[in-house]
Amino acid sequence: MPGRDAVDVLATLLPAGRVITDPAIIEGYRYDRARDARVGRPRAVVRPAGTSEVQTVVRWAGRHGVPVIPRGAGTGLSGGAGAVDGCVMLTLEHMRAVAVDPDTRVAVAQPGALNVEIKRAAAEHGLWYPPDPSSFEMSSIGGNVATNAGGLCCVKYGVTGDYVLGLEVVLADGTAVKLGGPRIKDTAGLSLMKLFVGSEGCLGVITEVTVRLLPAPAPASTLVAAFPDMIRAADAVLAITAGLRPSVLELMDRTSVNAVEDKLGMGLDREAGALLLVCSDAPGPASAAEIEAVAQICTRHGATEIHATDDPAEGEALAVARRTVLPALEQRGDLLLEDVGVPLPALSALVEGVAEIAEEYGLTIALVAHAGDGNTHPMIVYDAGAPDSAARAALAFDAVMDLALSLDGTITGEHGVGRLKRGWLPAYLGPEVLALNRRIKTALDPQGLLNPGAVFEN
Amino acid sequence: MPGRDAVDVLATLLPAGRVITDPAIIEGYRYDRARDARVGRPRAVVRPAGTSEVQTVVRWAGRHGVPVIPRGAGTGLSGGAGAVDGCVMLTLEHMRAVAVDPDTRVAVAQPGALNVEIKRAAAEHGLWYPPDPSSFEMSSIGGNVATNAGGLCCVKYGVTGDYVLGLEVVLADGTAVKLGGPRIKDTAGLSLMKLFVGSEGCLGVITEVTVRLLPAPAPASTLVAAFPDMIRAADAVLAITAGLRPSVLELMDRTSVNAVEDKLGMGLDREAGALLLVCSDAPGPASAAEIEAVAQICTRHGATEIHATDDPAEGEALAVARRTVLPALEQRGDLLLEDVGVPLPALSALVEGVAEIAEEYGLTIALVAHAGDGNTHPMIVYDAGAPDSAARAALAFDAVMDLALSLDGTITGEHGVGRLKRGWLPAYLGPEVLALNRRIKTALDPQGLLNPGAVFEN
Repeated sequence: MPGRDAVDVLATLLPAGRVITDPAIIEGYRYDRARDARVGRPRAVVRPAGTSEVQTVVRWAGRHGVPVIPRGAGTGLSGGAGAVDGCVMLTLEHMRAVAVDPDTRVAVAQPGALNVEIKRAAAEHGLWYPPDPSSFEMSSIGGNVATNAGGLCCVKYGVTGDYVLGLEVVLADGTAVKLGGPRIKDTAGLSLMKLFVGSEGCLGVITEVTVRLLPAPAPASTLVAAFPDMIRAADAVLAITAGLRPSVLELMDRTSVNAVEDKLGMGLDREAGALLLVCSDAPGPASAAEIEAVAQICTRHGATEIHATDDPAEGEALAVARRTVLPALEQRGDLLLEDVGVPLPALSALVEGVAEIAEEYGLTIALVAHAGDGNTHPMIVYDAGAPDSAARAALAFDAVMDLALSLDGTITGEHGVGRLKRGWLPAYLGPEVLALNRRIKTALDPQGLLNPGAVFEN
Repeated sequence: MPGRDAVDVLATLLPAGRVITDPAIIEGYRYDRARDARVGRPRAVVRPAGTSEVQTVVRWAGRHGVPVIPRGAGTGLSGGAGAVDGCVMLTLEHMRAVAVDPDTRVAVAQPGALNVEIKRAAAEHGLWYPPDPSSFEMSSIGGNVATNAGGLCCVKYGVTGDYVLGLEVVLADGTAVKLGGPRIKDTAGLSLMKLFVGSEGCLGVITEVTVRLLPAPAPASTLVAAFPDMIRAADAVLAITAGLRPSVLELMDRTSVNAVEDKLGMGLDREAGALLLVCSDAPGPASAAEIEAVAQICTRHGATEIHATDDPAEGEALAVARRTVLPALEQRGDLLLEDVGVPLPALSALVEGVAEIAEEYGLTIALVAHAGDGNTHPMIVYDAGAPDSAARAALAFDAVMDLALSLDGTITGEHGVGRLKRGWLPAYLGPEVLALNRRIKTALDPQGLLNPGAVFEN
């Protein structure tokens, strides 16, 4: 394997300041938000300013056999942007431009642009970029596309990939290609753009994203319903989605509610076994009607308290509460964050099974869910400093994925496989689909230098 | 190349009656609805009854080097299911089962099931399968997926691929793989399912489709607006979509309107330069409000007559009128049907350019458009029996695609490349993206036996 000299070569190929070898700075780029302790040591961090510089880095990496780990904002939760030994961390944070074309209703963004920056740029034109991962204020569009990130409003509006119209991608050989473009419908040639969505940096480096924008929706009405237990709340979710299309349908368990209350003190019901958070952005009087229909279903399913509001500020405060669950729990200990999803009728079985796993391993497992999509986030709270606790947490993490698989579910609904879940991918896909995945990976990255160890075991 | 003996082998591998060599029957399977005169002569038609029989056919084809042309209902408009010499036509019309799971809100269908059969099966449970190509009463779901078919309601609800949750595909080596499944969100592994959507039978044979269903929408209100010319109508489309989300937004030119009137005699305005057909399925009073807002925009853009109705039967009659344009024009002569799409602000330039092409080549080119998506269907009326007319039609077909490309458009929005448009794909994709397409094709179909000549020139 080449040593520092290869990095010296790279530094001569790029403008000054792009290649960073200061160990103190490198340290800050080894981890993403998964904080995977098994990350390796990069040989350098590279901060390109544009597509041609990305091409230079990827070509250089191919010549020198150096692994390239693309990195957006480093907010990934599955370790997809964790370092491997001897890699270069290709951080795209300086490629951050966003341009909105209001007539075509698209935004064209560099990969380092934050999701919220696209939302804001669109809003200046009365337009809306829907996908809203809880991390939307700090995660990058490149990372959102690479993981096909979801969020709260997917239940009505779909995931990141549903809004991507075009991508510029730097391939493993350094070629930059444009896939798709600002056309709403296009079926000319293979769906390669879709293939790169969710590819977690394993097939190429995303250097530009064109997303579709929608007219801004009507202001949402919001409902919070307290249930005595998670099962009844999950059953209500199934009944709601059978006939209604809420724009948000989130489930929080008692541990999550209490963690948020500890942090925000906003008066949520600490005694409730579960809270449902439901929004309707149906236009005009239809939103109140939809919320009323939701309220009736919740009552039928045993809700003990229901509060509805059409005050946007109050609705937003409740959405903030939901998004605060993860940071609030991070203050309680170390976290293993799950992202399993199941067919909707299996939601209550999943919720029940997670509670049994928590009991079996003597751990707190908080649970929030994008319930209307069957996508749940069990969050295992443990103490990384205590070997016994860490061991039990790892076993519980495993058990939750086994549970999801037993319910015809997926090991990841919106975070990606990354490095944390790659060990479960073979069980999920089965040998033949895994072989098909590898065939595509090999066709596009024959040297295996693009984010090696993410998604697939080496 | 092997002769009849290979077909004899195949007949022994399948139950009786699956392999058809009667030339009279074979003749009926050489063409799809594109009626491409350059189709070849199949050696046999094969009608499998299930996935394992498809596997048998594909494995046999690989051993004997026989091209396999998958075929659904034969309603394709780009020649994607046209025969090549010595091929087997793999017709999936006997694989037609549909099963709806109302709790999971999915339908699982064999590829030969018609779109309308899925719609009907869903409706029995109060559910809705949105994608509605004009051919929905006669096109198959397998073909819809293979072309990523669009339709009228895509403007609000998206295209076929937006509803596909899972596919079973028989690969070139005969392996059957299940990609995706009944999970609304899933980002585990590469997006291979999305890659097969729109792949036009070139990567594998689709043997089962799992689609997402939605709750049935509110009954739609409908508006028809007459404009003095196509340009003003196209400008109205841009203004409507800037702030509203109609569920249908279709444009018809005078020729199309008159062809429909000749056939249906329903009292459409024969003198109008253009008709816009707009539906709103916003819930409750919101649909009337949305239709009123559309009416105001149409008036501002010079509409000479506006008619609105909330009678579902009248609205459906107007949708039938729109869908009748193609069969009505087919009675006037031979047709070359275009499917070009452009970024929305270029719609009026496209419409204008098509009129200039019609004038230049002395042809009638009727035009309808899924206008809210920028996807247009110029229909070149000519006389296939008259060499001069046919030559001018071919040149005009070419000119329309050149025009679309010059406007940053696509050569096909929803019909697929098939065999009719493969010559333009290199110009659309450029050499590097074309090479990438071929790399994927070769990785999945190394012998090149799956629908050879579709999408790509051999």
